Amino acid sequence: MSTAAPTFISAPDMLAHWQGHRRLTRRVIELFPDDKLFTFSLGGMRTFGELANELLFMAAPMAHGLATLDWKGYEPKGGKSKSEVLALWDQSTKDVDKYWAPIPAGRFQETITSFGQYTGPGHLQVLSVVDNEVHHRGQGYVYLRALGIAPPAFWER
Amino acid sequence: MSTAAPTFISAPDMLAHWQGHRRLTRRVIELFPDDKLFTFSLGGMRTFGELANELLFMAAPMAHGLATLDWKGYEPKGGKSKSEVLALWDQSTKDVDKYWAPIPAGRFQETITSFGQYTGPGHLQVLSVVDNEVHHRGQGYVYLRALGIAPPAFWER
Repeated sequence: MSTAAPTFISAPDMLAHWQGHRRLTRRVIELFPDDKLFTFSLGGMRTFGELANELLFMAAPMAHGLATLDWKGYEPKGGKSKSEVLALWDQSTKDVDKYWAPIPAGRFQETITSFGQYTGPGHLQVLSVVDNEVHHRGQGYVYLRALGIAPPAFWER
Repeated sequence: MSTAAPTFISAPDMLAHWQGHRRLTRRVIELFPDDKLFTFSLGGMRTFGELANELLFMAAPMAHGLATLDWKGYEPKGGKSKSEVLALWDQSTKDVDKYWAPIPAGRFQETITSFGQYTGPGHLQVLSVVDNEVHHRGQGYVYLRALGIAPPAFWER
């Protein structure tokens, strides 16, 4: 972008928006019955527990990588039960905040390669993580509906 | 936000990102068999044709509203068949570009009320439209999988 281009959203506002999405995703995880989170799926797709673990593998590692350019230094864990996933989610929430704070101001416009394989500007690196969360959470809504459980309103954050 | 806060993403880069999402959603609409777009669903949810019409009702009207603050001046149409929806989608793509261009530079940080009911900063108004598209498209992926059709890769734009 040109440095003269108007700002769409600032870095602190984007963090707040992302954490709002993460609160909603946490509520979706909570709504799954314990015995369905890692067993139920549709269309041969992954369970919502597996999808939630994928989100854990991306969120805090992305914030850590943008802050440090060290893409191996944060080792995320995945859970095997709802209580484990929720505990890891809460830790991840704190870590996203912790590593977002020291990200250099220009990093979001720099072209970088994350995790040794994805090359693009910092803002697209973050958006790919957030969009992937929204995408998979939408799938979780279908799973919940198919289980007869009403998902939270999309705009509740 | 403080005016000193670093930019996460500029307005032109956000438009490019949104239009990338819209190209992917178009491919998802195209992948539905003609006779399934408005008939197939899971969990008692809306069909993907109905969801695509909802996206049409939000995208260009949002860009038009942010440019003009006239929330009734753009009357979007919905389609009743795949060919109608795709034609409306292509018109909507042009209209999003057309109305995005004259949006005033500060509009994305202003607090505004869209469509007479949603109050928040301009950037959240746009993000709510984009996020809603990603959310519902994720649901479309489940429908396609359940129909035995492989959806496009999420990162293809």
